[in-house]
Amino acid sequence: MSLNIVIMAAGKGTRMRSKLPKVLHRLAGTPLLHHVLHTAATLQPTRTLVITGHGAEVVEASVAGLGVVGLSSVRQEPQLGTGHAVQQVVPHLGDEGVTLILNGDVPLIEAATAQALAAACGGDKLALLTVTLPDATGYGRIVRNAKGGIEAIVEHKDASEAQRQIREVYTGMMAAPTAALKRWVMALNNQNAQGEFYLTDIVAMAVAEGVAVTSASAADETEVLGVNSPLQLADLERRLQTRRANALLEQGVRLADPARFDLRGSLTCGSDVEIDVGCIFEGEVSLGDDVRVGAHCVIRNATIGAGVVIHPYTHIDGGSEGASVGAGSLIGPYARLRPGAVLAEEVHIGNFVEVKNSTMARGSKANHLAYLGDATVGERVNYGAGSITANYDGANKHRTVIGNDVHVGSNCVLIAPVTIGAGATIGGGSTISRDAPEGQLTVTRAKQMAIAGWTRPVKQKK
Amino acid sequence: MSLNIVIMAAGKGTRMRSKLPKVLHRLAGTPLLHHVLHTAATLQPTRTLVITGHGAEVVEASVAGLGVVGLSSVRQEPQLGTGHAVQQVVPHLGDEGVTLILNGDVPLIEAATAQALAAACGGDKLALLTVTLPDATGYGRIVRNAKGGIEAIVEHKDASEAQRQIREVYTGMMAAPTAALKRWVMALNNQNAQGEFYLTDIVAMAVAEGVAVTSASAADETEVLGVNSPLQLADLERRLQTRRANALLEQGVRLADPARFDLRGSLTCGSDVEIDVGCIFEGEVSLGDDVRVGAHCVIRNATIGAGVVIHPYTHIDGGSEGASVGAGSLIGPYARLRPGAVLAEEVHIGNFVEVKNSTMARGSKANHLAYLGDATVGERVNYGAGSITANYDGANKHRTVIGNDVHVGSNCVLIAPVTIGAGATIGGGSTISRDAPEGQLTVTRAKQMAIAGWTRPVKQKK
Amino acid sequence: MSLNIVIMAAGKGTRMRSKLPKVLHRLAGTPLLHHVLHTAATLQPTRTLVITGHGAEVVEASVAGLGVVGLSSVRQEPQLGTGHAVQQVVPHLGDEGVTLILNGDVPLIEAATAQALAAACGGDKLALLTVTLPDATGYGRIVRNAKGGIEAIVEHKDASEAQRQIREVYTGMMAAPTAALKRWVMALNNQNAQGEFYLTDIVAMAVAEGVAVTSASAADETEVLGVNSPLQLADLERRLQTRRANALLEQGVRLADPARFDLRGSLTCGSDVEIDVGCIFEGEVSLGDDVRVGAHCVIRNATIGAGVVIHPYTHIDGGSEGASVGAGSLIGPYARLRPGAVLAEEVHIGNFVEVKNSTMARGSKANHLAYLGDATVGERVNYGAGSITANYDGANKHRTVIGNDVHVGSNCVLIAPVTIGAGATIGGGSTISRDAPEGQLTVTRAKQMAIAGWTRPVKQKK
Repeated sequence: MSLNIVIMAAGKGTRMRSKLPKVLHRLAGTPLLHHVLHTAATLQPTRTLVITGHGAEVVEASVAGLGVVGLSSVRQEPQLGTGHAVQQVVPHLGDEGVTLILNGDVPLIEAATAQALAAACGGDKLALLTVTLPDATGYGRIVRNAKGGIEAIVEHKDASEAQRQIREVYTGMMAAPTAALKRWVMALNNQNAQGEFYLTDIVAMAVAEGVAVTSASAADETEVLGVNSPLQLADLERRLQTRRANALLEQGVRLADPARFDLRGSLTCGSDVEIDVGCIFEGEVSLGDDVRVGAHCVIRNATIGAGVVIHPYTHIDGGSEGASVGAGSLIGPYARLRPGAVLAEEVHIGNFVEVKNSTMARGSKANHLAYLGDATVGERVNYGAGSITANYDGANKHRTVIGNDVHVGSNCVLIAPVTIGAGATIGGGSTISRDAPEGQLTVTRAKQMAIAGWTRPVKQKK
Repeated sequence: MSLNIVIMAAGKGTRMRSKLPKVLHRLAGTPLLHHVLHTAATLQPTRTLVITGHGAEVVEASVAGLGVVGLSSVRQEPQLGTGHAVQQVVPHLGDEGVTLILNGDVPLIEAATAQALAAACGGDKLALLTVTLPDATGYGRIVRNAKGGIEAIVEHKDASEAQRQIREVYTGMMAAPTAALKRWVMALNNQNAQGEFYLTDIVAMAVAEGVAVTSASAADETEVLGVNSPLQLADLERRLQTRRANALLEQGVRLADPARFDLRGSLTCGSDVEIDVGCIFEGEVSLGDDVRVGAHCVIRNATIGAGVVIHPYTHIDGGSEGASVGAGSLIGPYARLRPGAVLAEEVHIGNFVEVKNSTMARGSKANHLAYLGDATVGERVNYGAGSITANYDGANKHRTVIGNDVHVGSNCVLIAPVTIGAGATIGGGSTISRDAPEGQLTVTRAKQMAIAGWTRPVKQKK
Repeated sequence: MSLNIVIMAAGKGTRMRSKLPKVLHRLAGTPLLHHVLHTAATLQPTRTLVITGHGAEVVEASVAGLGVVGLSSVRQEPQLGTGHAVQQVVPHLGDEGVTLILNGDVPLIEAATAQALAAACGGDKLALLTVTLPDATGYGRIVRNAKGGIEAIVEHKDASEAQRQIREVYTGMMAAPTAALKRWVMALNNQNAQGEFYLTDIVAMAVAEGVAVTSASAADETEVLGVNSPLQLADLERRLQTRRANALLEQGVRLADPARFDLRGSLTCGSDVEIDVGCIFEGEVSLGDDVRVGAHCVIRNATIGAGVVIHPYTHIDGGSEGASVGAGSLIGPYARLRPGAVLAEEVHIGNFVEVKNSTMARGSKANHLAYLGDATVGERVNYGAGSITANYDGANKHRTVIGNDVHVGSNCVLIAPVTIGAGATIGGGSTISRDAPEGQLTVTRAKQMAIAGWTRPVKQKK
């Protein structure tokens, strides 16, 4: 049976107190609406219609950027209620199959639940997604008849004392036969205190027509929680992070503290991976077998080989190019790897070292206070403390090439473009502006002089 | 009606196991007693009397430093109970108005609650601040008569089984007609097991005199919690931080994790501010619109302009002078801004860079492993990786002046006092001890020499 | 009465999804089994027998490394159940005293509880360690007779409805008269669905023989929790860390957030120590009176003197040699002290400074972007920003000696072996390859030259 998915994304989200439309606020690094779209896509719908309104241009641009097949945006202007929203998509729907209505600000709905909701509809029933809450105060209650069929959704304020005892509530998500849905929403009226068209009014229409109203259940409250304020967003963030941490623990990843772990993207881990407290993973990160990540690291878009040890406060951000660290390497503490840092096996990057757009071959080391930018570094190179590749002449970037087995002394400057021949040694404190030959010692050094009779400055009175 | 506020601050706090008097222990960076004094000041009392005892000198000096008008300290020596404490202030009180008694170790009492307590007194009643607890075990219960008037405070150990069911308890705070309070406390006796004068005994005196005993209620338990141990202090710290985090979320600030956020001072935020996990704000900090603060930053006494992006592990401490970052700047990761760092718009400070007592004009950059101290930097300056202002000659600090559009190469030393003329270029690895002319390349560089026949050191046996 | 302790450590721990045998997984930095062995050792048993199976070689090597007197490992191969495990140790036990059975994956059993269990046995009874749970679902219930004696352990699946109401459960630990235990376990059979020998079947044997079956109680659930999955390990880690944080708070240590504190080893604190959020302590660390540790520090194997202030993001790792910081020193932010860093009183180590295998005498300073490796630094030395000890010539490490009152300028390189005489000044940017005389200024510096007519590079089109 063909499936349409309609996603409500027109709301302003006043309580977010933000210039950004509510559905574009980020949960675990991804806009709320994108979470729903990713889930929707797994159901392989015939078409996906996103109803936009507040901030429509921005929302539509964000959605278009995802490149989802069969997706289009439909504007709701002005915003006259949930029923009015669905009226806008009527011209875009055929008469067949099932239409599933999801919310762009309810990001954690699970595919299985959405699937079950569509299945409950089955093409001939109206199916509501419901959840049973410990305390249902404030929510619209699901009123059922003696046979268990749903008779109505009763708002809290309209509920009788007996109805208020009901803990099963409506979640805002439903699935309906497409043809019937179109007929029902076009028949809605706005004769109510708010002057809005309410989608939930179609329940009464279905009942009146003798169409069965049934339900599917959300597995837990988290998947039907909406985001209306930064407080709710922060709460949902923690719920999602807990879920992600638990999933990794189940896979065998050892997290020192699941409550101090953030994953904003995807993290693939080999066996026996250990992650200390306070680490953040963003974008696409993979960690090989036996990788250990120290406390308070931030890692984004990177591939880390087996057995790598990453010490605390390491910051790896591969950007759009990515960064990679070969097996057996030691990184940090206080190391920073930037886009295009490509380290082979057993490379050592130590404290206060920055590597950008550079390759380092097997066994090379830059252990202390150094900068490698736009460099091609051979094998077994020892790049001295305080040494810098001067890759930028103020106008253009140039490349530094360092051969195998080179030893660069401390506090050197390698002024690119420059090549250091294999096996060369660069004396400490040298500024190298021309190529250095293979196998030789190259230095730039003034004569060391002691100046007798020199007297130190004296502290001046202020 | 005139208001006196008396604050009990004589206790030792043995369980704190500290040299510091208990009321000076810090909650969110501020001494407990100061929290109470700040709240008290909002009630605009005629006079505020702080009763000191243990560590009196230190407490009095701390209080005096606040410069609160109408505040004085009164010593209680020795400490013979709460009633004895209040006896000490009797000579300092007139006969008019209301006297409100607060506790220096109950820091989170809210102004509205204290105000309500004074209002409940009204000048002719004894008003007790009470709170209703889920479990009142151990606390003094509020016993009321049939009309709801308070008849007594009964200590837990003295309470009947029926009284132990009472969950409304006394919080240690009260408000009384000043004249009556003076009369009552001077009439207290210490004929009890501990040989102490108990302030709560005045309840019986009021009842005996036919003075109405009434109450005001604390909104929640947190505002009446006292601090007697580091465990309680840590618990209250978290409660306060949660409250502060929630207040910021309500304002629209987006906190990645409210449980990993610490504010020890005041934080003013524009719209659409995002703060990642593990950040700490101290002193006075303001963040402009759209500021993003990365994970694990520590920021104190600083003004951050609109659109600034602060990367992880950035440490900004403006000290008493302050530090400021202009709109659109990029700071960090691992950047340190110290007192007197004044950055204009669109300045970039990168990793392992320290800036102290220096101004940087629009568009200047120091992106890698550098130190700028006592420097005046013009616009569009590129300050190279590894470069250092040698601002200290061992006796005095000197200033470095860098003109607009200067390009300082890598690993340079600028020996202050020194001026680099506008548009100058300083060659990489140069040590600049005299002024460099405008528009020219200035270098100090020895000739690069390759030494043929040189052999590398060989690893020695140990 | 002589005591044998048997520790079950043969399990595979499939749910850990790890190459490492389960009992070697680390809790607070120490293998689970070692926690149990440390506790066991405090009971001064005659002998301790560890039953190994899965990963036996690794477990046995780990245990042997502890050097516990009277400890030996016994293999169980194949693993045919808990009763079969205990059968393996029968040949290694005499006939006297009490045998206490603990579990290598239940790490937090307290010595007092284990002692109480042994005492409950008393040499003539079978004593089970039990705990009362709020929800006992899934656990083996303790069924008692009218007199309170234990009649049976009934597995959840075999329990009647009435038995399922019992909340007292068996923990897997017991103590028995050694001779009886040997007799009972050798009489076990495996006529059950799993074909395993169950140790708990000896309860029925004891009852049948008229031997009293009694119990000791665990104080709280935490001490009897076993580890079967990374999720359980993470949960237990937090419970243990909370316990450790609370113990330090009780001692008067002030933790900014007990939930963001990790101690993996031992931490000794003087009075008035303050520790900010996100700190980790490993190995043996001692902090003197009034030490303040800033946020997000990682400290391992170090001795920190009184009054030391450690700023945020400081990483101290003394390794096996240790590291020490003298009283009144200031360290960090972003300071790294490595093995053999020995700092005297009032030393200052600032941002982006690394110290390894070096001593610094009283009052010396290295405040900015510097490396001190294999150096002996005198008193009152000012070691300039960006300066480096070139301690490694590519083959061997050499020592740098810096006398008292030396002033090393910025961005210097000291090429070891080299000695800087007392009172010497090293000019900024110098590379010092020969000894510098006392009291004089030593420099290596090329002439500063301005090159007129030089033109800057122009940005090239790509």
